[in-house]
Parts: sequence; structure tokens; C-alpha cells
Amino acid sequence: MKKKIKKINTAILIIGNEILSGRTQDKNVAFISNWLNSNCGITVEEVRIIPDEEKKIVKNILLLSKKFNYVFTTGGIGPTHDDITSKSISKAFNVKYEYHKEAYTILEKYYGKKKFNDGRRKMAKMPSGAKLIYNPSSAAPGFIIKNVLSLPGVPSILNSMIENCKRYLIKGNKVYSKTLNLYTVESNISKKLGLIQKKYKKFVDVGSYPFFRLGKIGVAIVTRSTSLTKLKDVNEELFKLAKSKRIVILKI
Amino acid sequence: MKKKIKKINTAILIIGNEILSGRTQDKNVAFISNWLNSNCGITVEEVRIIPDEEKKIVKNILLLSKKFNYVFTTGGIGPTHDDITSKSISKAFNVKYEYHKEAYTILEKYYGKKKFNDGRRKMAKMPSGAKLIYNPSSAAPGFIIKNVLSLPGVPSILNSMIENCKRYLIKGNKVYSKTLNLYTVESNISKKLGLIQKKYKKFVDVGSYPFFRLGKIGVAIVTRSTSLTKLKDVNEELFKLAKSKRIVILKI
Repeated sequence: MKKKIKKINTAILIIGNEILSGRTQDKNVAFISNWLNSNCGITVEEVRIIPDEEKKIVKNILLLSKKFNYVFTTGGIGPTHDDITSKSISKAFNVKYEYHKEAYTILEKYYGKKKFNDGRRKMAKMPSGAKLIYNPSSAAPGFIIKNVLSLPGVPSILNSMIENCKRYLIKGNKVYSKTLNLYTVESNISKKLGLIQKKYKKFVDVGSYPFFRLGKIGVAIVTRSTSLTKLKDVNEELFKLAKSKRIVILKI
Repeated sequence: MKKKIKKINTAILIIGNEILSGRTQDKNVAFISNWLNSNCGITVEEVRIIPDEEKKIVKNILLLSKKFNYVFTTGGIGPTHDDITSKSISKAFNVKYEYHKEAYTILEKYYGKKKFNDGRRKMAKMPSGAKLIYNPSSAAPGFIIKNVLSLPGVPSILNSMIENCKRYLIKGNKVYSKTLNLYTVESNISKKLGLIQKKYKKFVDVGSYPFFRLGKIGVAIVTRSTSLTKLKDVNEELFKLAKSKRIVILKI
């Protein structure tokens, strides 16, 4: 009996000049992708990194929110002039950019009435109709509107908020993954590997990634599938391939 | 006298399931961007990360190569079945995917005639008319066709090849950058910072990035401009702002 696979996908839109300029190394893509896959069975199918420019944010939000089940944005929801994500998303969806009552209350309580200045108040402004994604580490909430979830760019804060996204997400089927590390070079196994991928094309994704470790070179064969049985079958074939070529398997 | 700014931009197209799945942390965006900016005065304006799928590669190559002066691709030029970048770029530009004579000779010499198997020969196949980007660390060359430069995904190999891209690139005006680290929070300076950005809008880009260091929180104000004079002017205003608010400047 063939099980129907419920595939839920997402795009990530990284908003920030500092990532594009190379000043800051993005860490959010890997974190969000791993979390979505392990916890929600959701696959990241495209990532875009764009500058803090309203036109580009609007265009990408409209395009990606149509194309994918979800869009995660990171960056641009802080208090400074270059934080224009919330305003731009409001514009994209043609809704008001206004104070979110609960966000305002949370932030006012966090900073205290006296210190709740313009910049801090700005973080309570969101697209009208947005729902909050709570922030346990620094109060300022993210939000979801339609299928777009907006999170901050600072990795430690984003990481602390990710669990609060769960309630808004429909789960897909979990993708299982197995890695086989072989002490060989890609070109030694590429032909047979291609045949194995062809055979299991519909069920398993076979990836091949060179590595350098402890002064030796090797290849990590990563297999991914929503079916544990098919994953096992493929890995048995990979073991056979390694044995036939007398390739040492690295245990980690 | 107003100096004419020669702006040269590029996109980076990261091709690889392993980056999208979160298994591998991309390091190439930051490296390429820093190198292009410091050595060629070229700005990265957009990054896309897409899976190893021919249709998506073709579509993105066509779109990005029209939109930007250059496109750098990373990943998918190795010997295995999931390395389909060269073939897909050939398809995008409607040229033959065939052995590049010099690449073939380089690889045959590197591996030796006996060990020059199918997988290794595959790495000599490129879009017809491509020029080589030499690889000093593991022989297999990258290539440029039209305004698209294709590099491998393994960071250490890519890094070793980047200097060999220079001969194909037209230089733009260098973007200078200065960072001022302040022991304060964004919301304390956001209003004044916004006014400074507004004043220098045409010449200087002012970015604000929170940081956590040695148990203290702070804000890095990053200013970027092709004019050293304007950069100096803005930073003088930033110093004044810090002084007026009695903010400690972190020297690093």
C-alpha cells in the first residue's frame, strides 16, 4: 500500500545588508531548516538573502508567499531605521502598519513606562491582523501574518523563539536521513552511486559530499526519505558497494 | 566635483540540497562577498540557495544573469550524479555540454591515464565556449561562461580558486567600511541614528547590529560608502552622538 506523502515546504527570506556584505555569517538558515525538518516535517526549498530595501522585501514576500506553504523571514524587526521588515510586509499585503495592542503591552511592561521610547515602541508596530510569536529572551515579539512568519536576525534570540512558531504550522511527513562516511573519493564510486540513485529516484534522495577529516579525505553519502524502509534498502546497497570496492567505512 | 560611481554588482547562487537541509553550514557567501568587495569593488546584491534540480538551476541562471553584472555559482561541479550545475548552465544558455579540451588534459594529467575514469572525466564537461577558472588545490577547474562564474562548493577548494576569477571581472569602486562598537542598546540611539542616515542617504549606508560580548550587550554601527570623506563625516557625527549620550565606545 502506497502511503500518501504530505509535503509541506517553506522558503527562508534573510533580510539584511550585513549578511550580503559578508560582515556577518548567517547561521539562521541551518538552524531553521534543521528545526523544521526534525520537529515539523517541513522542507526548506529555497533561501533568498536580500538587502534592507522596501521594494525588494515587498516583491519577494509576495512571490515567495504564493509559491511556498510558508515563508520565514529573519532580520529587520528591531528598533532602528534599517529595520523595515514589518512595514514592508504590511505594504506587501496591503494592510495597515500599526501598533499591535498585546505587543505594545508586553514591551511597555518589559522596559517600564519611562524608558518606553520611540525606538522601543516601533517594535510593537506590525501588519494589522498579525499574531504574535513570543520572545522569551528579549521580549520584542515576532509575528505571523497569512503564511509569513517574521523572526529577528540575532541567532540566539531567534533560537529562543522558534518553539513558539510550532502552533502556527501544519506538520508534514518527517524526512529521515542517514549518513554513511566512506574513506574514498567521489570519482571512485560516482558511477554505481548514480545507478543506485536512479533505482530509488522516487523514494530516496542520495547526496554525495566530500569531506576532509583527520588528514584523510572521504565522502559522506547522505540519504533522505520519508520512508524508513526505503532508506534501509538503499543503505544496504551502499554497504554492498563499499564492500565490493574494499572501502573503509568511518564510524562516527 | 562629483565623482561618478561605477557600481558593479553580482548575485550568488548556492546550489546544493545539503545547504537547504541544514546539514551543511554555508560559508561561501561571506567569503565571496568579502573577497569581491575588498579586491574588486563588487557588491553582492542577492543570494539564492536552491536544490540540485535542473529546472530551478536553469531558471535562476537565466534570471540572475540578466539582472546582475555577474553571477557566482557554488556547488554541483563534482563527479557524482547530483553534480548537475555545468549541464544545467549549458541548457540555460542553449549551448552544448561537452568536454573542454584543456580541462580534460589537466584532469587526465592529474589522475593519470589509468585512473581517469567516467566520474573524473565528467568534471571536464562544461558548457561549450566556457573559459577555465584554475584550481590549484584539487585540479578540477571551475569555469566562466557569459557573466556566470561556476565554482565548487567545498570552501577550502573555492577559497584556493577565487584569485583566478579576478582576470574575468571588471572592477567597481571600492566600498569602504567603518565599524563603531557602542556599549548601548539600539533603542537608545535609534531616533538620532535614523536622522543621521537620512542626512547622508545618498552617500553612506548606516547599519545597526546588536552584539553580545564579554557579558555585555552593545550595538555595532557599520557605515559603508565609496567616499572616504563622507564616511569620515558620518563617523564624526556618530562620535558626537555617543558623547552626548555618554555611551562608552568599545575599542577593538
